Amino acid sequence: MSPSTLSTSSTLARTLAADLSTAPPGARVTLQGWLHRRRDLARVTFLVVRDRSGLAQVVVAAGGAELPPGCSEEAALEVSGTVAANPAAPGGVEVVDPTVTVLGEPAGPPSVELWRPQPTASLPVLLDRAPVAWRHPRQKALWQLSAAALAGFRSTLDHSGFTEIQTPKVVGQVTESGANVFRLDWFGEPAFLAQSPQLYKQQLVGVFERVYETGPVFRAEPHDTVRHLAEYVSLDVELGFVRDHRDVLAVLRDAVAGMLESVRRSPAAQLLGVDVPVMPDEVPVIHFADALALVGAPEDEPDLAPAHERALGAWAREVHGSDFVAVEGYPMTKRPFYTHPQPDDPRWSNSFDLLFRGLELVTGGQRLHRHEDYVAAIEARGETPEAYADYLQAFAAGMPPHGGFAIGLERFTARLAQVDNVREVTLFPRDLHRLRP
Amino acid sequence: MSPSTLSTSSTLARTLAADLSTAPPGARVTLQGWLHRRRDLARVTFLVVRDRSGLAQVVVAAGGAELPPGCSEEAALEVSGTVAANPAAPGGVEVVDPTVTVLGEPAGPPSVELWRPQPTASLPVLLDRAPVAWRHPRQKALWQLSAAALAGFRSTLDHSGFTEIQTPKVVGQVTESGANVFRLDWFGEPAFLAQSPQLYKQQLVGVFERVYETGPVFRAEPHDTVRHLAEYVSLDVELGFVRDHRDVLAVLRDAVAGMLESVRRSPAAQLLGVDVPVMPDEVPVIHFADALALVGAPEDEPDLAPAHERALGAWAREVHGSDFVAVEGYPMTKRPFYTHPQPDDPRWSNSFDLLFRGLELVTGGQRLHRHEDYVAAIEARGETPEAYADYLQAFAAGMPPHGGFAIGLERFTARLAQVDNVREVTLFPRDLHRLRP
Repeated sequence: MSPSTLSTSSTLARTLAADLSTAPPGARVTLQGWLHRRRDLARVTFLVVRDRSGLAQVVVAAGGAELPPGCSEEAALEVSGTVAANPAAPGGVEVVDPTVTVLGEPAGPPSVELWRPQPTASLPVLLDRAPVAWRHPRQKALWQLSAAALAGFRSTLDHSGFTEIQTPKVVGQVTESGANVFRLDWFGEPAFLAQSPQLYKQQLVGVFERVYETGPVFRAEPHDTVRHLAEYVSLDVELGFVRDHRDVLAVLRDAVAGMLESVRRSPAAQLLGVDVPVMPDEVPVIHFADALALVGAPEDEPDLAPAHERALGAWAREVHGSDFVAVEGYPMTKRPFYTHPQPDDPRWSNSFDLLFRGLELVTGGQRLHRHEDYVAAIEARGETPEAYADYLQAFAAGMPPHGGFAIGLERFTARLAQVDNVREVTLFPRDLHRLRP
Repeated sequence: MSPSTLSTSSTLARTLAADLSTAPPGARVTLQGWLHRRRDLARVTFLVVRDRSGLAQVVVAAGGAELPPGCSEEAALEVSGTVAANPAAPGGVEVVDPTVTVLGEPAGPPSVELWRPQPTASLPVLLDRAPVAWRHPRQKALWQLSAAALAGFRSTLDHSGFTEIQTPKVVGQVTESGANVFRLDWFGEPAFLAQSPQLYKQQLVGVFERVYETGPVFRAEPHDTVRHLAEYVSLDVELGFVRDHRDVLAVLRDAVAGMLESVRRSPAAQLLGVDVPVMPDEVPVIHFADALALVGAPEDEPDLAPAHERALGAWAREVHGSDFVAVEGYPMTKRPFYTHPQPDDPRWSNSFDLLFRGLELVTGGQRLHRHEDYVAAIEARGETPEAYADYLQAFAAGMPPHGGFAIGLERFTARLAQVDNVREVTLFPRDLHRLRP
């Protein structure tokens, strides 16, 4: 019997590619990563090693150490060698006189040529080969924008008195809309995948006042477009004790500002050359009715067309110097049943869309908070309050004025990176035609 | 047309209950919250207001301002008044001469008596009334332990070079185990809810080296026990370029230490009087074979019984002064197909369980990383590698030695809070019998 204690100190002092330029010439270093590119020239072999931080160049001189078998592109390697200055290498340094160990040998050439500046395969092929395609530095950086945005979102809210929640993704009742819902078998009972945490996050305002959730939502939308996914990541916020939707918009402004700031600081944004917008201290706000007039649309239009949103984006840029503009007061008829009407004119609602460079980015607003208002709104839809009994418990127990919003992570990142198709920024997209890999 | 800009400055200077004690006596303050308790005495009425930070006492003298209608327990209120010292009040201060506004009137008395020190209803009743029951300060604090643990988990990994990932929860193939999986209809195709992000997080080690995910997993386990949920939150980690499972265990040690530290700093831990354990710098590790010998079990036992785990917990406490002990080397026959064998004796595996006070808390280990090892392991199960084609793409492209672990959030919190039933720390539990609220 020989119980031992775990040593947490590593015997391997590993150097990341991004830190190589800070190592003094002549220093011995050990790199770990994948063989991104191998070029065999007459008198020298160049190895480019890719790790989580970036790329490093390794030079194997002819007559030097033999390279081991399996040292082909995408092999997982460990390389020990000596740092040498070379202005032509990434970061101005390279590793010479290396000892190369293959930690994981590929079974064949990679299915995507990862060393090219851009992957050359079509998007459907890249999606089929996602486990390999995501290794491309540009692809990887696209996801890192999402990860940075997520971190900035949570950090902003964590510092503003919000509690993170985790609500169920399998529900016993469809409430928001009977359409576009995935059905499943729950121990013999019918159940559904949650289309949003909307009803739960409202209930939890009654507990924590201010809540957020980052998690998957599911929409069985039969739309085959560049903007729709059937499973996506929703960043949800809900807060109580608001005066109206303007207080919600102020939190949205701060959350998006935090996301942008986090993205701005990320190496991925620099690698991709992302033009990260500046969130103004004061977001320009225009009422829906005024927006229709501004863009020259008939005053009885029920919604803004994409051309209208683009025109509003241009107006915000020109008049307010802002990439962002909020439209408030959408017609009640176009908003879900829990939407709070505009107190002085109930044709309009206390809801908003936030547009980014003329594209809708976020939807939110104030919700109803009185139990009797819910009962009336549900009956007005021809439904019975009994169908909403669990949800209504929260309102029967006393709820303050509250509101919130939801940001689709993939759409946010796609717009930031200015890619057309949300699938380009989704690790493993799910849609009408795609359930794998 | 009157476009305006959004003012982010609030006209309401709100004071949180927890900050009331720092306000000077005589100051005018405004509280917002729920009426936690109302006691009408002959000459005075006491209102206890509950907000996200805690409780505050408000005193309404007879002959003072009338309380408005609807000012009953669980009403959402705004209270403006004057701070006065009172050693008997929470924090040594109370609010006197109040003006009370009802922001949200309850439809009736709350279904749970929230002002009692402990909710008196049975657990099934509390679960049915979750939207109200979670308002209880002790209940709320239980979830806040989870939220703090989540934040500590992410923060630790964010500072250790990990990338957060979000992988799909609907999958086209069942791979880990055909049993205990929920089936659903995906646009007419059969699909399944993901039992874990295991196969995805491994693939993404090939991209980001070090990844984590916090999200729901689904197990159609027909177990009606205090430890099993059919949907729970899994904290998943996977990292590449490890020497073996001991490097994984070192990251687990740091992640759990970060979770505990975050919990320790949370007001919820203080409110609940949680005895937060100390994570030792070096976790005691014992081999499975040695563990069997230590607890006096036959050497051909394939697993540790609960009594064995308790004995190991006592041993770790006594010999190493540690609430934690890791058992490594579980028999290969008891571990999933992707498990890496112990190099010097392939009967055993490079896997581990982390026990906390004699209860299994986390499972993890090193995985296979060579493509040919996967092909052999899958064929040894009587399956074809073609069924795992998407997963195997990552290994065909070259993968380093890697490993990881998964922590069940609800189980972690339950053990920390020393509650028997994971449902006590789950906002809206899902199990064999429960699909609502």
